[in-house]
Amino acid sequence: MNKKDSPCKVEFLPLQKSTVVPYGTTILDAAVKAGVEIDVPCGGQGRCGKCLVRIERGEVNHGDSPYLSNEQIQQGWVLSCVAEVASALVISVPSKQEQARVASGITPAKEAAMLHLDWALTPPISQFYVKLPPPDLTDNTADFERLKAAVVAEYQVEDFDISLALLRKLSQNLRKANWQVTLTIDTRGQGRRACLIDIHPGHKRQPSLGVAVDIGTTNVAGSLVDLNSGHIINQVSSLNKQRAYGEDVISRIIYSEHKGRVKHLNKLIIQTINDLLDKLVLPFSLRDENSHLATTDIQYIVMAGNTAMIQLLLSLPPTHIRQEPYIPTTTHFPLVKAGEMGIKINPEASIYCFPAIAAYVGGDITAGVLSSHLFQADKLTLFLDIGTNGEIVLGNSDWMVACACSAGPAFEGAGVTCGMPANMGAIEDVTINSHTLEPTIKVIGDSSPLGICGSGMISALAEMLNTGVIDRSGNIKREISSTPRIRSGQHGAEYVLCWARDSASNKDVVLDEADIDNLIRTKAAIYAGIVVMLKKVGISAAEIEQVLIGGAFGQHINVERAIQIGLLPDIPWGKFYFLGNTSLAGAYNVLLSRQAQQEAEKIARKITYLELVADSMFMSEFTAASFLPHTNPDYFPSARSKPQV
Amino acid sequence: MNKKDSPCKVEFLPLQKSTVVPYGTTILDAAVKAGVEIDVPCGGQGRCGKCLVRIERGEVNHGDSPYLSNEQIQQGWVLSCVAEVASALVISVPSKQEQARVASGITPAKEAAMLHLDWALTPPISQFYVKLPPPDLTDNTADFERLKAAVVAEYQVEDFDISLALLRKLSQNLRKANWQVTLTIDTRGQGRRACLIDIHPGHKRQPSLGVAVDIGTTNVAGSLVDLNSGHIINQVSSLNKQRAYGEDVISRIIYSEHKGRVKHLNKLIIQTINDLLDKLVLPFSLRDENSHLATTDIQYIVMAGNTAMIQLLLSLPPTHIRQEPYIPTTTHFPLVKAGEMGIKINPEASIYCFPAIAAYVGGDITAGVLSSHLFQADKLTLFLDIGTNGEIVLGNSDWMVACACSAGPAFEGAGVTCGMPANMGAIEDVTINSHTLEPTIKVIGDSSPLGICGSGMISALAEMLNTGVIDRSGNIKREISSTPRIRSGQHGAEYVLCWARDSASNKDVVLDEADIDNLIRTKAAIYAGIVVMLKKVGISAAEIEQVLIGGAFGQHINVERAIQIGLLPDIPWGKFYFLGNTSLAGAYNVLLSRQAQQEAEKIARKITYLELVADSMFMSEFTAASFLPHTNPDYFPSARSKPQV
Repeated sequence: MNKKDSPCKVEFLPLQKSTVVPYGTTILDAAVKAGVEIDVPCGGQGRCGKCLVRIERGEVNHGDSPYLSNEQIQQGWVLSCVAEVASALVISVPSKQEQARVASGITPAKEAAMLHLDWALTPPISQFYVKLPPPDLTDNTADFERLKAAVVAEYQVEDFDISLALLRKLSQNLRKANWQVTLTIDTRGQGRRACLIDIHPGHKRQPSLGVAVDIGTTNVAGSLVDLNSGHIINQVSSLNKQRAYGEDVISRIIYSEHKGRVKHLNKLIIQTINDLLDKLVLPFSLRDENSHLATTDIQYIVMAGNTAMIQLLLSLPPTHIRQEPYIPTTTHFPLVKAGEMGIKINPEASIYCFPAIAAYVGGDITAGVLSSHLFQADKLTLFLDIGTNGEIVLGNSDWMVACACSAGPAFEGAGVTCGMPANMGAIEDVTINSHTLEPTIKVIGDSSPLGICGSGMISALAEMLNTGVIDRSGNIKREISSTPRIRSGQHGAEYVLCWARDSASNKDVVLDEADIDNLIRTKAAIYAGIVVMLKKVGISAAEIEQVLIGGAFGQHINVERAIQIGLLPDIPWGKFYFLGNTSLAGAYNVLLSRQAQQEAEKIARKITYLELVADSMFMSEFTAASFLPHTNPDYFPSARSKPQV
Repeated sequence: MNKKDSPCKVEFLPLQKSTVVPYGTTILDAAVKAGVEIDVPCGGQGRCGKCLVRIERGEVNHGDSPYLSNEQIQQGWVLSCVAEVASALVISVPSKQEQARVASGITPAKEAAMLHLDWALTPPISQFYVKLPPPDLTDNTADFERLKAAVVAEYQVEDFDISLALLRKLSQNLRKANWQVTLTIDTRGQGRRACLIDIHPGHKRQPSLGVAVDIGTTNVAGSLVDLNSGHIINQVSSLNKQRAYGEDVISRIIYSEHKGRVKHLNKLIIQTINDLLDKLVLPFSLRDENSHLATTDIQYIVMAGNTAMIQLLLSLPPTHIRQEPYIPTTTHFPLVKAGEMGIKINPEASIYCFPAIAAYVGGDITAGVLSSHLFQADKLTLFLDIGTNGEIVLGNSDWMVACACSAGPAFEGAGVTCGMPANMGAIEDVTINSHTLEPTIKVIGDSSPLGICGSGMISALAEMLNTGVIDRSGNIKREISSTPRIRSGQHGAEYVLCWARDSASNKDVVLDEADIDNLIRTKAAIYAGIVVMLKKVGISAAEIEQVLIGGAFGQHINVERAIQIGLLPDIPWGKFYFLGNTSLAGAYNVLLSRQAQQEAEKIARKITYLELVADSMFMSEFTAASFLPHTNPDYFPSARSKPQV
């Protein structure tokens, strides 16, 4: 008997229900036959990645899937609507929690690796214990020179400076400590002299904390790090308080252009950062004396952010970033002291800001290129950071080209009727049943939905296209009368994702044609940016060996759906890697490694910037990309091969 | 006929009176015989230097005199009470003004030379004109990087930093200036990176001013200098406003030891300096646009002062300078910015403070060693700075030893009943007629006397000793009844220098026994310091090849009288050089020369400090020196050879 003709026994755990089905039956069908319930929000089309089961014994034929990492495949996870029975099987059906964990955790290993230190631990902050010979009438060396002599004699430190503020307390501090002190010295580098930044009595290793900060236009994320070990003590994020004065960079710059407002926006970001620092340290602030941590123990901060955000952080008026030809005041920001910035840590601590590449390709991208290792890549790599703006870097260890496309903040929730950032209550995933056109939604925090965030919009758009709710121009097919979810609204036709009765806002959560138009323009800008960059360099999409996607938002994108709507190029899913917040990861590495800092400076100088704003090729590619997935079907072969519903 | 037997005709100009006198007659006696009046305040004993006449024709035998420089002798000036007729003579008797000018102008040439630049003109402040290519879409370099690239391309400047304050205005300034600007850059040195400190539109050489400041405990002197040429634009001095809180360093330190008072004293010295800067610039502030100067044009200040004054300038608590073992917080002060100090010039301007040697040998002495060229001297040199304290440096280009003796501020007027600083109204010279015991006084500004300053005290003491008003222990001889000027007072006997009716204060100006005791202790401390230093090095006073006297006060000391009271060692007058304010002169040189600054740093490190405070040899030498001139007459052979009245 040919193997393919054999009936196979399939047993489902933990319910111990079993059935016999022909070779080639989907596991989903086998489960239905065995009376085992598996959720299939997409109606069994392999589009939602929710019908996960694990093969304990036996073989299956499972198709390619963007939902599963190699590690998960090795662990035996399959999508039951796609995988087919190829032998006798024992299958575990996970609990809903377990299923959600696996489904949402596409890259849990990568997320943890996100803040991995890729360099030798050489933080610029070091502690030195010295015991000084007390002065007497025969040895009258001055206090600071005595201190320096002791450090130089005992350690490999050549010389160091001291601030006036610390010098003012030095004589008293040395005597109170009976001439035995622990010094914290910032060795800085970049041709700068080392500097004493803290002094404590006695010999006791002091907490030496650093903070890596990603200053986003919308969110500010921070990691509290032990500089001695590299250990991450805590991670938190906050909304950027500047948001009240503009959702995106451009509107915030426009706001800043009246007298006194740069100062106001500066005050807001400083407040945001101070609050973030408080939150980072809070859980450790009430510990006993020996393990207690305070914000004043923070000795170094590394900031990565887009150029406008860093200019506002430093109170540098950002006007000319907005006005053609889009010039920042500087791309290499001065090292400043926390004290002069109003950042409430050790006032002597340095604040390092990642160097930017151009007005719209900021230090966050430099940090991303650093932490993603694009600058060392042998493979031809496309790096995408899709946040409030869309930044693209193409290259490898030999060359790198970057551009920004004014994607706009639609994916962050702005300009979309029910749009919101990826916070609690946001719809982050949508599956539409192709038969009933009823949606199944996944909400961050498993709460009632308030609105829809970027990843939700991408999956909604893809599902609406796949199920025929919209056409390739993004028009909702009003003629469909089988569902009340398609109806007329204020801005053209709309599709109801969630009825008011089920929503946290007591309003219907919808996507209307204006929203869809906005989303199409956003994805078209990003895709056009990619195409133009490839064309300028003379490379085809097929030649791209890997696509690295950074940014907190990018992390949640479903590749298949992003390709379906023409946001990402149509290349094999296996080439896509989601790296999480690469900006924060870069800041973490620079916090702990002077070599990483030097590399960051090199990267910023090495990248060639392409200005797309006035580029005619960009304009025509943008127009061509303003369809779902694209005007030119050759660009999206996988969409052609799929049956249109 | 032997020449010595000849009668000689002596003619006096401009009165054209003449007489015939024997060979060897003093010119004074010849004048009396001819009916020509010459003032001889000292009674014709060669002690006051006031009876100057000039030999137009003929020969005289003139004795050694401390009152005349070689140049003056060559010009024919003699003291009429000392010089003897040796041939027929034509003699000019100068007007009183002319006489005063010559008598007071012992070192007029040296005073002008005081602020001479001894180094190549290499000020750390330079101006650069650059014309930038304006940015466009094909050249989007950021503003600061564009500026740097233009400077680096055109000038020999490697790289420079910018402060946040200037960076905040940079984008606007460049555009307003239509991309043509004049930059002022501080190249600093000392391993520090160059820094942009000013930016002006267009190409126009900007005023680039520097100020050299000598911060004395009593007086603060400043010179306004054109950094491009080294030209001295103006010089002024002010009383240190801190004086209200202690006449001397020690009492000011004691005052500072309560909470908040370091800050208060700091505020006072900053006010003093700001007022001084206003005074320096005032005459030039109302000029037209092209030659107008403002305090904001000041781009660099170099300060020299004693260690306590500089610590207070920087708000470094000076307590431990006062407490054994007398340790300053630092001897090498950080370079600070005018803005952070509250000094009202260009806020980006650097303030450089001369490095100190020890608690009581400050940066003013480092500056003195620099400007006096002691550090380059082939001759064995004794450098003295007698101000509020007395500092001594001994050495040559190979080695230098320094010490301080707590001389106290008696010579600056403190602790002396009618003492005052060398300001308008101070008696600066006293001659006592040995017959009548009537004094002739010289008052600064030729006004009515208010009190007596240091040089006046030294000459009064010497005259009182020479005329027998006091004995060698400083006791006033009460038994002398021939003059009402000797009388009993509140603090023992006293001598009246000026009656109330002639004084500006309407009080008798006196020196009493307590004052004399104070002055003897002061001169004894200085002399003991010199002796101990010589002994420790194993050198005798006779081996000293030159004595350089710095300090504004030292400038007015009469060497002969200072030796007579045992303040200065008894070595030939020709070895003494008065250099004026050597501290200010050092500051002037460092202001204009980076090499001079490096040399100053080297000098401060090279000088070996001797601590005399607890030195038993010092104590016994001090006791031995507490006589007039000294307990050991061998130390003062010239006093022995003089007849005691």
